Amino acid sequence: MIKGHGDDAYLFGRPIVANFSSNVYGRVDLSALKAHLALRLDAIGSYPEPEPYTLEARLASIHGLSDPDSVCVTNGATEAIYLIAKAFSFSRTAVLQPTFSEYADACRLNGHEVLTVSGLSGLPGDLDMVWLCNPNNPTGGVIPKSNLLEVIDEAPDTVFVIDQSYGFFTREELMSAAEAVSRPNVIQLHSMTKRYAMPGLRLGYIVADPSLLKRIRGVRMPWSVNAIAIEAGLFLAEHPDTAPIDLDALLAETARLQGLLRAIPGIEVGDTSTHFMLCHLDSGSAGELKDWLAREKGLLIRDASNFELLGPEYFRIAAQTPQENDLLVSAIRDYQEGRL
Amino acid sequence: MIKGHGDDAYLFGRPIVANFSSNVYGRVDLSALKAHLALRLDAIGSYPEPEPYTLEARLASIHGLSDPDSVCVTNGATEAIYLIAKAFSFSRTAVLQPTFSEYADACRLNGHEVLTVSGLSGLPGDLDMVWLCNPNNPTGGVIPKSNLLEVIDEAPDTVFVIDQSYGFFTREELMSAAEAVSRPNVIQLHSMTKRYAMPGLRLGYIVADPSLLKRIRGVRMPWSVNAIAIEAGLFLAEHPDTAPIDLDALLAETARLQGLLRAIPGIEVGDTSTHFMLCHLDSGSAGELKDWLAREKGLLIRDASNFELLGPEYFRIAAQTPQENDLLVSAIRDYQEGRL
Repeated sequence: MIKGHGDDAYLFGRPIVANFSSNVYGRVDLSALKAHLALRLDAIGSYPEPEPYTLEARLASIHGLSDPDSVCVTNGATEAIYLIAKAFSFSRTAVLQPTFSEYADACRLNGHEVLTVSGLSGLPGDLDMVWLCNPNNPTGGVIPKSNLLEVIDEAPDTVFVIDQSYGFFTREELMSAAEAVSRPNVIQLHSMTKRYAMPGLRLGYIVADPSLLKRIRGVRMPWSVNAIAIEAGLFLAEHPDTAPIDLDALLAETARLQGLLRAIPGIEVGDTSTHFMLCHLDSGSAGELKDWLAREKGLLIRDASNFELLGPEYFRIAAQTPQENDLLVSAIRDYQEGRL
Repeated sequence: MIKGHGDDAYLFGRPIVANFSSNVYGRVDLSALKAHLALRLDAIGSYPEPEPYTLEARLASIHGLSDPDSVCVTNGATEAIYLIAKAFSFSRTAVLQPTFSEYADACRLNGHEVLTVSGLSGLPGDLDMVWLCNPNNPTGGVIPKSNLLEVIDEAPDTVFVIDQSYGFFTREELMSAAEAVSRPNVIQLHSMTKRYAMPGLRLGYIVADPSLLKRIRGVRMPWSVNAIAIEAGLFLAEHPDTAPIDLDALLAETARLQGLLRAIPGIEVGDTSTHFMLCHLDSGSAGELKDWLAREKGLLIRDASNFELLGPEYFRIAAQTPQENDLLVSAIRDYQEGRL
């Protein structure tokens, strides 16, 4: 899907004051990273490594993986999704919905038979693949680790693609990289974009058993990750604390925002284990709310009606600063009061 | 193909003094571009446009194309190659060899039946696609425009993919963007990487009839071109003369280098219409020469033996500065004198 994702401020004529529409937490201090990149711009003058071997080895080491071939760095987690779907073309594949639309899109593009399922219990038999996002976009839900491992270990012939792009942003226990690599049927996705709030750079990676990854590497093109993204990755691998996020404070603020939104008449807010949440209007459409917020208030939310299984009443919000969140709550209250 | 391309200095322990191994002309002054990018690093904090619409519209306008949908910007010309091969999966496809290996690789990966042909005359019948590079990598040859148009217009059911990545680097007349768009069976590739000597950034684009491009856009993933590459493209579209190349001087220097190499015993050098050339050792292997040059002299050339139809005696050289070229000639002369 090219159109219909969040962070689509470019569609609106007026400046956006605060952006709740992507799941990227915007309050990360990138000054050290930018200062480093400014010094490394000479990198544009040479081809990047055809596959980012050096960064892959560093990330493997950070995750405590002995074999650097357990990590495959990609042009954002999105390239990882498309490579996996391609490497496993024509599979019979279940996608846990609602979730990030690219899994099903990439699978359909590569001839998979795509089944929509809404939970891990009672999965159809004979599946080649299961795709899920944990924590999940757009709901913010986390599948308990023991539950997930049990399902995975009971289905050794099914490959589980587990997108942990938002893994940093939860206190729930998730599968470790080592636990993924030790299983021949797990492919784990990570996003440096999300953790370091640099979606402009596109940097993700796959963690999996090297023989699974060999199949995925077999369908990749050379030089898909550009030299500046690689430079950023190497810097962040060496300075992981360069852009600190106070996760406890962010999750507490998320809970505060959730409470304020739940107090507005006509709005339901789902439970979440991370910093974004799925909301539901009792009447009216999220698209109208989104347009009104953007045009009248310069606030951008994510119309979530194009997620599979979700209707036009759904929208997604990622918590930002208390001041920004207060602006949003007040604006949505105005909207609902003017409408109800 | 991941390994086996040029610009593989990362494989050698010692510093490379001069690099003849990629077809990127390294003497382009990128200081204005780098200064601009240093000011635009904030772009890493937001998602790029899911498809680079703004840059596509600018490039269409520069090429005098009325419909911005005639241009599709990609993560280097390499992404374009893989998207086209995917959009036309399972085609019966001829590739004019020897040439850039990614055409055949991408086509095979997408189920094409790939035929090797060595010229446009006597193409097999019933072809769905023909891929060619013009000027061609690694030979530097250019197919005369009238000849090419004649073949294209006589085969309306065959789609011709014409990679003009090196189009800036020749004085031969090539097909224009408008001539490509006006034909329903032409897909033209361009590379900003090559023209502006910034292979680290990955920026290419496709020019074609919008209905052909619609098919190609249908298989692309979002955000494949990162925000820094887009910033560079927008800057270069606005300041096309920011990194001037004296092409006449470069081609004259190429001819001088060619003459010097031809004077070394045991070496043949092919004709070229651009700034790189294919060379042949009467005996011995290009791989040995490459290793010797890298380890003994810090000079990097392209072992061309992995191009289809070429044997182990072939190597490719892209002309650099007169001083660098003299270093290379002297080193190759030393090598041949020590060996013959």
